[in-house]
Amino acid sequence: MMESWSFPPDYDSEYFPDPDSRYWFAERETMDPGAREAAIIERIQDVMHYAYAHAPFYRNKWDEAGVHPDDINSLEDFERVPVVNKAELRQSQEDNPPFGNYLCVPEDDIHHIHGTSGTTGRPTAFAIGRGDWQTIANNQARVMWGMGLRPGDTIFIGSVFSLYMGSWGTLIGSERLHAKTFPFGAGATGMTARAALWMQMTRPKAFYGTPSYALHLAETAIADGIEPKDFGLELLFFSGEPGASIPSVKNRIQELYAAQVIDCGTMAEMTPWMNAAGSKETDGMLLWQDMVYTEVCDPTSLARVGWGKQGTPVYTHLERTSQPMIRLVSGDLTHWTDGSDNPCGRTYPRLPDGIYGRIDDMFTIRGENIYPSAIDGVLNEIPGYGGEHRIIITRDGAMDELLVRMDAEQEICASEDDREGLRQNAEKKLGAVLGVRARVEIVSSDTIPRTDFKARRVIDDRDLFKSLSSEAGEP
Amino acid sequence: MMESWSFPPDYDSEYFPDPDSRYWFAERETMDPGAREAAIIERIQDVMHYAYAHAPFYRNKWDEAGVHPDDINSLEDFERVPVVNKAELRQSQEDNPPFGNYLCVPEDDIHHIHGTSGTTGRPTAFAIGRGDWQTIANNQARVMWGMGLRPGDTIFIGSVFSLYMGSWGTLIGSERLHAKTFPFGAGATGMTARAALWMQMTRPKAFYGTPSYALHLAETAIADGIEPKDFGLELLFFSGEPGASIPSVKNRIQELYAAQVIDCGTMAEMTPWMNAAGSKETDGMLLWQDMVYTEVCDPTSLARVGWGKQGTPVYTHLERTSQPMIRLVSGDLTHWTDGSDNPCGRTYPRLPDGIYGRIDDMFTIRGENIYPSAIDGVLNEIPGYGGEHRIIITRDGAMDELLVRMDAEQEICASEDDREGLRQNAEKKLGAVLGVRARVEIVSSDTIPRTDFKARRVIDDRDLFKSLSSEAGEP
Repeated sequence: MMESWSFPPDYDSEYFPDPDSRYWFAERETMDPGAREAAIIERIQDVMHYAYAHAPFYRNKWDEAGVHPDDINSLEDFERVPVVNKAELRQSQEDNPPFGNYLCVPEDDIHHIHGTSGTTGRPTAFAIGRGDWQTIANNQARVMWGMGLRPGDTIFIGSVFSLYMGSWGTLIGSERLHAKTFPFGAGATGMTARAALWMQMTRPKAFYGTPSYALHLAETAIADGIEPKDFGLELLFFSGEPGASIPSVKNRIQELYAAQVIDCGTMAEMTPWMNAAGSKETDGMLLWQDMVYTEVCDPTSLARVGWGKQGTPVYTHLERTSQPMIRLVSGDLTHWTDGSDNPCGRTYPRLPDGIYGRIDDMFTIRGENIYPSAIDGVLNEIPGYGGEHRIIITRDGAMDELLVRMDAEQEICASEDDREGLRQNAEKKLGAVLGVRARVEIVSSDTIPRTDFKARRVIDDRDLFKSLSSEAGEP
Repeated sequence: MMESWSFPPDYDSEYFPDPDSRYWFAERETMDPGAREAAIIERIQDVMHYAYAHAPFYRNKWDEAGVHPDDINSLEDFERVPVVNKAELRQSQEDNPPFGNYLCVPEDDIHHIHGTSGTTGRPTAFAIGRGDWQTIANNQARVMWGMGLRPGDTIFIGSVFSLYMGSWGTLIGSERLHAKTFPFGAGATGMTARAALWMQMTRPKAFYGTPSYALHLAETAIADGIEPKDFGLELLFFSGEPGASIPSVKNRIQELYAAQVIDCGTMAEMTPWMNAAGSKETDGMLLWQDMVYTEVCDPTSLARVGWGKQGTPVYTHLERTSQPMIRLVSGDLTHWTDGSDNPCGRTYPRLPDGIYGRIDDMFTIRGENIYPSAIDGVLNEIPGYGGEHRIIITRDGAMDELLVRMDAEQEICASEDDREGLRQNAEKKLGAVLGVRARVEIVSSDTIPRTDFKARRVIDDRDLFKSLSSEAGEP
């Protein structure tokens, strides 16, 4: 059995690679992609047979689609398996409360309960089995090893511990790695200022949180006279938002902390959500296909797109026994490469720019498709930008208008000329990248509220301020 | 080795008692108190020799006091060991950052970092070793078993996950118990209303948090049209505040939720902090002396007081290897009995009224010693009380005056007569219990902010609104 690769998995909780090894599981991480695909097909068959036997949800769905686990003998066959979307999971839990008819383990095996925030309707409950919890810890530790983290390192977790799986996955990965885990959390009044003090005091090697929060934390520290570079961080790793793969945001964070930034994270449902993650040597995100098999698919046909092409990730658990997700469609937006040039030598496909948007975040202005992440990217490259903005889409008569309200650094705000200069510069650069005219409005710094969590920046005013909000709950 | 009682401890992570057993470790919990004391002396010798060898903090302190581990052959001898107070721990960490010269394990063995909130000065960092983390989990699971919790039960944790050890201790105890752990947390905007929805959806058997928060949660649920009784809770267990042993507060919570209330918790430094905890059959708190040896001491002589007498708890870890606390003086206030009549049959001493105040919370008005917990107790028995209050001490000329500002239920506030009736009733009852006149001011419900955490209710206005705040950080 290659490095404990089986279904269900059976990881040795005492296993550690050689400290000098770049890889946790050298064979699984660097094997020939064709050989890996052959093994993935076996795992898919295992998990599909398991789900067919234990989950009426899958049995009914597949029977209806005329698909049976026995028929899936290639990755192309697998593309015929109907995808799962979040609305179906919600419906299943509404019909079979609280955990849905895709639980697959006895209720007494449930170890942890978590869930989505339910911002777009009924929340979804995650029931994670005792065995899965160990599997998740092992997988997250393995990815964190790839980031260069080692036993004894101090890892500071600056994200809220509640429903959100991001914090918990990092926690148990860090514990399994035998790091010094500092689960500081976030979200309550005054916590950010205290986080800065504790980081100054304990000098962690790594920080985990969301990119927005890391920027907010740096601002808070600086305002309190603490220099974020003095935390001594070597690494910040992020999930929950696209920012860490947007070059301008990434650079800004790297400069503020004088430390490396690594992006990771897919969806809470897919925990071990680090199944897409960068490594110490490789930017963007590797798809750790032997934990979770990821297809980047055409949003309509839901078949894989070619290397270099853009699509939406569709995820399949290869190692989960409680609530396994089989072809869960994310609705996120990315593009992928075959990863043959990954500097770290891992032979996984790669998302060179991470996961940078939502299919449904995209909006259209006068025929141009606009992604909010593109606007974020432009603004972060403009000197004088204060760090926060809102995107407001209005209709002026028959024409849609794009208004970007951005804040400016304090010195800029002091001078009318500087403000106007910033405004014109931002309009010019946005126009060049987006292909449509954007009006820019400059506001003083601190006018736009910062968020501890996922920034929501688009206001669609065409339909009476209906806010475009995407489903939260994914790390 | 009696049920893994040794130093350092070596618990079997797979051990479970018979499901019908009232006790996790029947022998340790029900043994003859004299025999237990003899064993405790052995454990004290073990931990003192260990600390003397590994911690300059203890070696210096004891050398200076002329005390050596070899000399401690009775519990009376042990009373000569100088106590440790929190200021010394802070100083040790300031001199030997970040974990102080009482760490006792190699830095690489540190598993988790937590700490105090630092409301009264430099915070203290807790560095908890990997082995200790398992010991703590086993001990907390054992106490929770005594509360009637069993594998497969759903335990909802409604307290913040950050520095605060209360949440983490409950988490790992619940995990070790093989409960379904739902670590929901608390503290961020909107979380309370969502907590109510999730409890309605998942129907946990038990809730953990602070008494103030349980009251706030019930109010929030009722305001949202959710009946807390419908959560189906059987048990709420509490730490972090004295409330759960104050009969009126306890009764109020029991009525709101139609469930049993159990009090527990000593200090974060003493984790496994459930070393003082009630059981399913026994009210108040048992002192689980084989985990943490507790002496209730005269605050001046720091020798034990007799059964039935009031004093301050002084705690000694018998099973911790990282940062063991040996005679840590709490500054809390309690009284104890020998526990020979404990309904559950455990032979531990008992704190019949829990831990109900702080030595330094006490204030004096015209010669009478007043404990805030006594005022809390009186108000909670008065019909029409809205659930929150503040205690304001003013000086009117030469005389100290006690003002209690309390809120009233909405119906009361609507009528001037009812308000005045409530005011007079409260003044009469407070006067009778406190022995001094208290002026009462009635304010409408929701005027006084609720707290998610430990309620701070005393405002000493004699010294320009200097707030009497006690050190936070203890569960």
